[in-house]
Amino acid sequence: MTGPARYSKKKLSDFIASVFVAFGMPGDHAGVIADLMAEADLNGSDGHGIFRLPGYVQRIREGGLNLKPDIRVETEKSGMALVNGDNAQGHLVMKFCAEKAIEKAKESGVAWVGSHHSNHAGPANLYAKMPLAHGMIGLYVAVGNANHLPPWGGTEMLLSTNPIAAAVPGLEEPPIVLDMATTVAAYGKVKTAAQRGEDMPEGWMIDKQGQPLTDPTRAEEGFLLPIGGPKGYGLSLLFGLLAGTLNGAACGEDVVDFNADFKTVTNTGQFIVAIDLAAFGDVIGFKRRVDGVIRAIKASPTLPGFDHVLLPGDTSRKKREDHKANGIPLPTALVTALNGLAKEVGVEPL
Amino acid sequence: MTGPARYSKKKLSDFIASVFVAFGMPGDHAGVIADLMAEADLNGSDGHGIFRLPGYVQRIREGGLNLKPDIRVETEKSGMALVNGDNAQGHLVMKFCAEKAIEKAKESGVAWVGSHHSNHAGPANLYAKMPLAHGMIGLYVAVGNANHLPPWGGTEMLLSTNPIAAAVPGLEEPPIVLDMATTVAAYGKVKTAAQRGEDMPEGWMIDKQGQPLTDPTRAEEGFLLPIGGPKGYGLSLLFGLLAGTLNGAACGEDVVDFNADFKTVTNTGQFIVAIDLAAFGDVIGFKRRVDGVIRAIKASPTLPGFDHVLLPGDTSRKKREDHKANGIPLPTALVTALNGLAKEVGVEPL
Repeated sequence: MTGPARYSKKKLSDFIASVFVAFGMPGDHAGVIADLMAEADLNGSDGHGIFRLPGYVQRIREGGLNLKPDIRVETEKSGMALVNGDNAQGHLVMKFCAEKAIEKAKESGVAWVGSHHSNHAGPANLYAKMPLAHGMIGLYVAVGNANHLPPWGGTEMLLSTNPIAAAVPGLEEPPIVLDMATTVAAYGKVKTAAQRGEDMPEGWMIDKQGQPLTDPTRAEEGFLLPIGGPKGYGLSLLFGLLAGTLNGAACGEDVVDFNADFKTVTNTGQFIVAIDLAAFGDVIGFKRRVDGVIRAIKASPTLPGFDHVLLPGDTSRKKREDHKANGIPLPTALVTALNGLAKEVGVEPL
Repeated sequence: MTGPARYSKKKLSDFIASVFVAFGMPGDHAGVIADLMAEADLNGSDGHGIFRLPGYVQRIREGGLNLKPDIRVETEKSGMALVNGDNAQGHLVMKFCAEKAIEKAKESGVAWVGSHHSNHAGPANLYAKMPLAHGMIGLYVAVGNANHLPPWGGTEMLLSTNPIAAAVPGLEEPPIVLDMATTVAAYGKVKTAAQRGEDMPEGWMIDKQGQPLTDPTRAEEGFLLPIGGPKGYGLSLLFGLLAGTLNGAACGEDVVDFNADFKTVTNTGQFIVAIDLAAFGDVIGFKRRVDGVIRAIKASPTLPGFDHVLLPGDTSRKKREDHKANGIPLPTALVTALNGLAKEVGVEPL
């Protein structure tokens, strides 16, 4: 028995770019998005890579995405900028924002760059990691593109999984890369459980009576639970206000469900912060202290049922190594769907 | 039957200041700390106000606190500053940092100010709220002053409850004020349950076999649980790296348990971010959008068992109104202890 077919990052990237170009996207934009999407797959963020292509294409088809955007700084001061994404694909906007934050942080030490009129940008960690190569810590927060979370004690889904990602470099140790939703489970995990015909564990979702909901095919009848109850609700709200409302982007009632509505401009909000280590002191000394924290954590005795203690980012890095060596596995159904799309638009199949 | 004795904020503040002055602290410093500690009590943060005075005094007695500190900016760029707290009481350091962040953000739009060689500063929300009066959002993160949290899957307590606070202003609605530990329960809540002879709910703590620990008198045998399992662990670690390691302050193995060791310099790390609303666009428009988010949340139908939906900060604000009108209630045992201290050092009792 063989496993699912595996593909190189380049193969996925070339395929994605060819599809976007077939829809009229400029080649340089298509290349940037394709590279970041394939990078997501390489990192094992399989719910945020090529899996999203059919949805992105649907938005292009229905006119919900601007293929010729003018992404620009709308206003800026030394420690911040606000970027108008001009309804471009989020990957383009957030790469622009990350580069702007890095450039500014070289001068200002810390720079905060927010965006409005952006779109879904794939996994948060892609952008949090961009400052690493410049001797910087990266932080990234986004408003999720569909509301699945009510306020604590309520039943109206006014909030999203609003994720945070952060990347902190070590010296000899690999960077700590956190990437997490403010809900116990991201909604993609619910969809995956439904596809696999598996029950969800208690604690992921409740129904409108407040009872545990474990059947993922009934997900529409309930909602996600925030981490730590009212605390996760508070974090999701805070991230929504900072990444959405502050930037003039959607948060709350005006969030567009991008899985159900492919026409309406989503006005997605995100922000990234770049923190230049050199501004705070000796960079090597900092990275060495991070190594110390990492090594102390790794050396911790474990609870029954745990073989070892992981650092944020360890699982993804392991997947990346496997994918680099052996290729990125794609489920057969996804390959079939993607090749159907390829035929339709007249590009080479996978 | 009458309730516990109640005191005005001024009464508590005057008392606290007199005790600090009796120990040789300059009057202006004593006044600032006393006002912030009494403010904590006024807000209902009763685990972080005058309740802490005996512990702070113990640190002064054992030489663990610098009574004549030179709190200073060690290095700065337009978007950041790093402050050396010179082992002062944390309230002094964090007020200094908040004012510095506000001053810088007026020019830079966003300013991030970190500290090292600070100490416990009371409730996080005090400092997150300081930028509000200047038309700014405030964020505050601290490394907790005792490690009660192991990394996920581990048993060595290398992390603390590392809290985050944030304050976001509305226009007609009161500000949203989030103040939360990254653990399900703050350690103070465990102590309170022990004092009251109550069991803890499952989910607050586990023992070293990974089993639920509900007897708070056995708290030493177990550890706190992070919100959302590995997610809260990741957040606590991230906050520790940003508030501690980045600033050259303690994080991980080098955190001093300030409830057990009153001599060793804690080298507490914190940071505050001030975000100037005017840098991002129309301030009134922003505040109106925040009102919209708040009102939509308040209008949400509720789950069974909930009368209404709360915004972060609502509970504290209600307590504050009661305390302003009727005084701040203090448990008799605490008043007895404080008056014993007063007698010892020769100041007016409460």
